[in-house]
Amino acid sequence: MSHHMDWEEFRRNGYRMIDELIEYHTTIEDRPVLSRTQPGEVRSALPSEAPVEGESFDRIMEDVRNIVYPGLTHWQSPGFFAYFPANTSGPSILGELLSAGLGVQGMLWQTSPACTELEAHVLDWLVDMLGLPAVFRSDGPGGGVIQDSASSACLCALIAARHRMVQENDIRLPQLVAYCSEHAHSSVEKALRIAGIPAANLRKVPADDTYAMRADVFSATVTADISAGYVPFFVCATIGTTSSHAIDPVASITEVAAHHGLWVHVDAAMAGTAALCPEFRYIHDGLAGVDSYCFNPHKWMFTNFDCDCFYVSDRSALVRSLSILPEYLRNTASESGSVIDYRDWQVPLGRRFRALKLWFVIRHYGVSGLQFHIREHMRLARIFASELEKLPRFEIVAPHPLNLVCFRHTSGDETNRLLEQRIAEEGRYYLTHTLLDGAYVLRLSVGQTYTEERHIRSFIKDLVTIEAKLHSG
Amino acid sequence: MSHHMDWEEFRRNGYRMIDELIEYHTTIEDRPVLSRTQPGEVRSALPSEAPVEGESFDRIMEDVRNIVYPGLTHWQSPGFFAYFPANTSGPSILGELLSAGLGVQGMLWQTSPACTELEAHVLDWLVDMLGLPAVFRSDGPGGGVIQDSASSACLCALIAARHRMVQENDIRLPQLVAYCSEHAHSSVEKALRIAGIPAANLRKVPADDTYAMRADVFSATVTADISAGYVPFFVCATIGTTSSHAIDPVASITEVAAHHGLWVHVDAAMAGTAALCPEFRYIHDGLAGVDSYCFNPHKWMFTNFDCDCFYVSDRSALVRSLSILPEYLRNTASESGSVIDYRDWQVPLGRRFRALKLWFVIRHYGVSGLQFHIREHMRLARIFASELEKLPRFEIVAPHPLNLVCFRHTSGDETNRLLEQRIAEEGRYYLTHTLLDGAYVLRLSVGQTYTEERHIRSFIKDLVTIEAKLHSG
Repeated sequence: MSHHMDWEEFRRNGYRMIDELIEYHTTIEDRPVLSRTQPGEVRSALPSEAPVEGESFDRIMEDVRNIVYPGLTHWQSPGFFAYFPANTSGPSILGELLSAGLGVQGMLWQTSPACTELEAHVLDWLVDMLGLPAVFRSDGPGGGVIQDSASSACLCALIAARHRMVQENDIRLPQLVAYCSEHAHSSVEKALRIAGIPAANLRKVPADDTYAMRADVFSATVTADISAGYVPFFVCATIGTTSSHAIDPVASITEVAAHHGLWVHVDAAMAGTAALCPEFRYIHDGLAGVDSYCFNPHKWMFTNFDCDCFYVSDRSALVRSLSILPEYLRNTASESGSVIDYRDWQVPLGRRFRALKLWFVIRHYGVSGLQFHIREHMRLARIFASELEKLPRFEIVAPHPLNLVCFRHTSGDETNRLLEQRIAEEGRYYLTHTLLDGAYVLRLSVGQTYTEERHIRSFIKDLVTIEAKLHSG
Repeated sequence: MSHHMDWEEFRRNGYRMIDELIEYHTTIEDRPVLSRTQPGEVRSALPSEAPVEGESFDRIMEDVRNIVYPGLTHWQSPGFFAYFPANTSGPSILGELLSAGLGVQGMLWQTSPACTELEAHVLDWLVDMLGLPAVFRSDGPGGGVIQDSASSACLCALIAARHRMVQENDIRLPQLVAYCSEHAHSSVEKALRIAGIPAANLRKVPADDTYAMRADVFSATVTADISAGYVPFFVCATIGTTSSHAIDPVASITEVAAHHGLWVHVDAAMAGTAALCPEFRYIHDGLAGVDSYCFNPHKWMFTNFDCDCFYVSDRSALVRSLSILPEYLRNTASESGSVIDYRDWQVPLGRRFRALKLWFVIRHYGVSGLQFHIREHMRLARIFASELEKLPRFEIVAPHPLNLVCFRHTSGDETNRLLEQRIAEEGRYYLTHTLLDGAYVLRLSVGQTYTEERHIRSFIKDLVTIEAKLHSG
């Protein structure tokens, strides 16, 4: 009396799920982008105990529609301008489905060789597609690996950097200091903390008026730290900060770092995808000589979470810092040294076949298709910026080289806070804020798969209406 | 000229992918379980550059069949007895498909409330289903969270433990010592290394003749370490070791740990699922008083990777150690303190909606359905053990309370190594080895969704035939 879903039932439910997703996506604009649910509301609709007997798929899907959907913030809505895009696409969803269905583990080459080889191969493709240094290719001393997130990539880079510095010298962790811009992602601080290095040993280097790290201050800080007996070991440069898409001067940072033996990690999580287009490839200028780099196809390259591409120029430095080989994982292929075992390139041991969705996306769109859509997002961001500039009481507050526009109402923080709130309440669009020079600033991030010009133009109209109401109210 | 897969194309390709998975699963026994591909073979079949123009889905699927499939080790084959099960199921695959299709981010409650609330809710269900201490429920001081793997759960536990110890006292990392059994998973050592604590500070406590940690030696080691000026801070007890499913004496370990203020983490990654059945719930005896616990539905509970359930008895200890709040993530819900923000419970920031597949599995099977299949796997392991005992030149070398049987041929390591190799070469079955008391031992791990009695009986026959050939050859 098996309880497994038999294959005909799987076919029926599978088709139905495909239909359901189409229904969800084609009606997504009818839903408020930011969920209106209250804390605890979803849970209160769920039974307090698991069912003893199995339930029908129909009942489960009923609850998906009635309980889950109202509790979602719709990241795939074309009106989602918040945080960063996490855009997905048909080929990506089907690649993830295939990965779930095959259910293989890629922890070692031997546990599913195609899982490892397709990943290494597609990550090599991306080196060329993004104009990254050839040293990141796996046919040289470097290589790429898929991590779950840029946070984990940063942690792995920092662990490898720490290992390299500590192994070669007699150093205690409290001596180590790391650097990033004051606008770097919080994951740098989190990585440092996980690695056991005091939070006070992270130097948040001030930014210039484009919100990019000041390389001169970085250099002076390193020198001062060395004089004070500290050991600088790691710097994270950001290409496209979360707050404003500022681009740190990677070449100048690398020059300073090389002089003092620091590991240079480059976080291009959100912006890296732009380099698919030759006209935006300048964002990768200066990458020669960096030790590691990451960008997230799960943000802006139509590939669903999780898929961060992490590259190192010397894979042995990474592997040495993370490899532990218990007997139960020993096997001939690993011992031959001719294969990659990705378990040594990441924190977890297990890993699923994430390269499939990335491979599907690249093949479905082709490089030119991806370029087309990235350019389209850039165009929409420019339209927004130029329309906004026509509005009397709004201003753009930071350079917007790519698909993120930071702007604010001129009457102060409270107005901008209210605008953010009202836009979310109206439900058609959703954006979030940051602080720049201490001021409350709104961020419009364009990158959802189905965002079109009409959404941008209609959002501008909404903004004007909401602002007028605030003004009159 | 959009390149997106339009929704009718998605429907066609989606149905086709569902059909493809059915075809894959219903013909899986025709494929050798361990891939026969040679290093580099998969890559050599792939073009060296990404396509400029998009390709048809038909061509992609052709390559899936011709290039990917031969490069897979088939974890979903009923003949897969290696490592640990990573069993998946229809409802799990469809839950993962839904998660990919909705494409929401659960880093904060606000970024998709249902993603957080369903996760907390289903993890509360599991506390009751597995007979775990009520303190792990999220309606008290504790709570559960889905991690990608038991490795990451162990790392988070260790970071929280380190934070608690270091915050409360003036301690340097090289003073900290951690403990686990000599048979504990390599992830404990990896977590320690990532956390910046010297590898020499991990005490691998010897095991008794059931391969379980000796609590008396643990106690004596802690005392000796304290006398030597070290600060014991963390112990990982294992319920079901990777090598042999040994069960450490959690209650005695916890008693010692409590006396000296150590954090007790329990790793039940593979075995925890057994506790679904009341007659196996004894494996969770002694959990009262532990600080954290994890088990992996992605191993033996029909839920595809990744899905590790990680519980803490005091969520504030975990959150304090991992929380960093940049401005761009501030929001009203978080500040109200009435919601869970899971980003503070894990290493990465982003997270996908993994609770869906777990919810689907539990509802589809019901508790009684899950119990039925777990009992069936136990029964098959017992059949294997009793059949093996009838064979003159084989012996069982460790207790096999659950679904893993460790055995060996009596003529020594080389014969067992050859047996392992020949079984894999024959292709119908695949198992792996470990070392117990220095001897090369074969492990039969029963837990794949579709493994039936006929597979076990036919494997025994294969074993006899292969052994006879070895003997005569």
